[in-house]
Amino acid sequence: MQTTPLMALAQAMTATAHPRALGLEVISVEKGRARLSLPYRAELVGEPETGVIAGGAITALLDHVCGVAVMTALAAPAPIATLDLRIDYMRPAAVGRIVLAEAHCYKVTHSIAFVRATAYEDSADDPIASASAAFILTGTQLHPWSSAPA
Amino acid sequence: MQTTPLMALAQAMTATAHPRALGLEVISVEKGRARLSLPYRAELVGEPETGVIAGGAITALLDHVCGVAVMTALAAPAPIATLDLRIDYMRPAAVGRIVLAEAHCYKVTHSIAFVRATAYEDSADDPIASASAAFILTGTQLHPWSSAPA
Amino acid sequence: MQTTPLMALAQAMTATAHPRALGLEVISVEKGRARLSLPYRAELVGEPETGVIAGGAITALLDHVCGVAVMTALAAPAPIATLDLRIDYMRPAAVGRIVLAEAHCYKVTHSIAFVRATAYEDSADDPIASASAAFILTGTQLHPWSSAPA
Amino acid sequence: MQTTPLMALAQAMTATAHPRALGLEVISVEKGRARLSLPYRAELVGEPETGVIAGGAITALLDHVCGVAVMTALAAPAPIATLDLRIDYMRPAAVGRIVLAEAHCYKVTHSIAFVRATAYEDSADDPIASASAAFILTGTQLHPWSSAPA
Repeated sequence: MQTTPLMALAQAMTATAHPRALGLEVISVEKGRARLSLPYRAELVGEPETGVIAGGAITALLDHVCGVAVMTALAAPAPIATLDLRIDYMRPAAVGRIVLAEAHCYKVTHSIAFVRATAYEDSADDPIASASAAFILTGTQLHPWSSAPA
Repeated sequence: MQTTPLMALAQAMTATAHPRALGLEVISVEKGRARLSLPYRAELVGEPETGVIAGGAITALLDHVCGVAVMTALAAPAPIATLDLRIDYMRPAAVGRIVLAEAHCYKVTHSIAFVRATAYEDSADDPIASASAAFILTGTQLHPWSSAPA
Repeated sequence: MQTTPLMALAQAMTATAHPRALGLEVISVEKGRARLSLPYRAELVGEPETGVIAGGAITALLDHVCGVAVMTALAAPAPIATLDLRIDYMRPAAVGRIVLAEAHCYKVTHSIAFVRATAYEDSADDPIASASAAFILTGTQLHPWSSAPA
Repeated sequence: MQTTPLMALAQAMTATAHPRALGLEVISVEKGRARLSLPYRAELVGEPETGVIAGGAITALLDHVCGVAVMTALAAPAPIATLDLRIDYMRPAAVGRIVLAEAHCYKVTHSIAFVRATAYEDSADDPIASASAAFILTGTQLHPWSSAPA
């Protein structure tokens, strides 16, 4: 088995308490791109009558996958902080299905990284929700979303 | 002790798995307004070197307080779904402090409710992050953020 | 010469006063997709020393191209209203260059249409700004962004 | 008659081509706060049957008032650039009425300024639309929304 440095970085970011509590898993990662999964679990259900997982879990998934994609886009791991995050929700997640999210950090300037992400079950063409976010590259002025894992 | 119907509603919404895993607590609630707390806990730390809690926990707090404020603004509990959520992050949360969030649902139209929220420790004038969101009032077409608790 | 119904629709939307004042032109259109141009003009300059056009002109371009893409995505022309619009700005537009914007309406639900757009000079991979927006499909409750031209 | 330096600054920003084409006028300004008006004019109508002005004109008004509020919040005029802008639209503007917009720059960090704005006819409690935006304080990396007028 082989783990690339980017995969190790993504897994270290996902091993912190909040992503772990949600059950997030890294599926694949390449420079500027990340794909994660959120397995369906009873504890995530927000609506007991239907079994649909809480919107907040989708929010957290998209928030995290954006951060991972930004980190992998940088030349070297560095502190990043979410500057803003916007999520649009299209429809409920299918009951009992794994939710995937993929993010693409499409632009890095001197001080800001821009990223978009989509959550879905089968195809990004039938999205559950989509996100766009901006991250600031020095975590010191703003909210340190994450530091680079050692 | 006395619990108002709005407080009971807010607490029922906060008793689901994801808010409970974060440790969210309802502080106060009135029609169209809600205040919640996120107590500091080691499991929420996103940055071990500094002890700062993960940005994702602030995101989840703001997401949830917006939903509670919208629900209390309605004439009767009804299914609501987050249509979109935007969060701006100003600075890290102070280490070891309780984070508060207050939300105000400032406009309800026939089909959409609009809400703003702020997270802070001591005063909303020194915010950690601020949110604005739109919720759709029938949960059937979109992501059911929450149904009305029975 | 031949004008498709979608092109006629896009041109009618762009013939209203505000788009015309900016000098917006429809380049191409297909179902759910639109491409428009904003020619460089001295009146749009926001920063006399550098000649860079005002950010507000880019905002207006993206706002409009989103509306056109949504309108073409509908089965039949119908009133639409912008529910929310978010724009991220990456860099200044190049001085003296035509700015292009292309939009894709990637999801239409019963009541909401979701769209993304990018502004650039040469390639969408080197964006000036990007937008995401949600439109509501009955203009009566909210801001009537546009009605269907007769 | 007396013009304060902040009023002179706001008027200079509003004397550029795009705000002038819309007919924007500065009503009042103080440190971190600005109020502007958009007089009703036939050229701004987006929907001929109803006479409602185009959503894009409201967008431009909010975009501009945010920039003015940020500029007045700074210790000294300096280049600023819109990093992102989000607008929520609640309802159509009333036909034939002046639209007002007021903005408050509620937080300035080392590199970013955060601002909120509301558009309305009579009262901010009955909004047409609301905006939140982030501006970056050095215009060189991103879109130069405006330079400081000489």
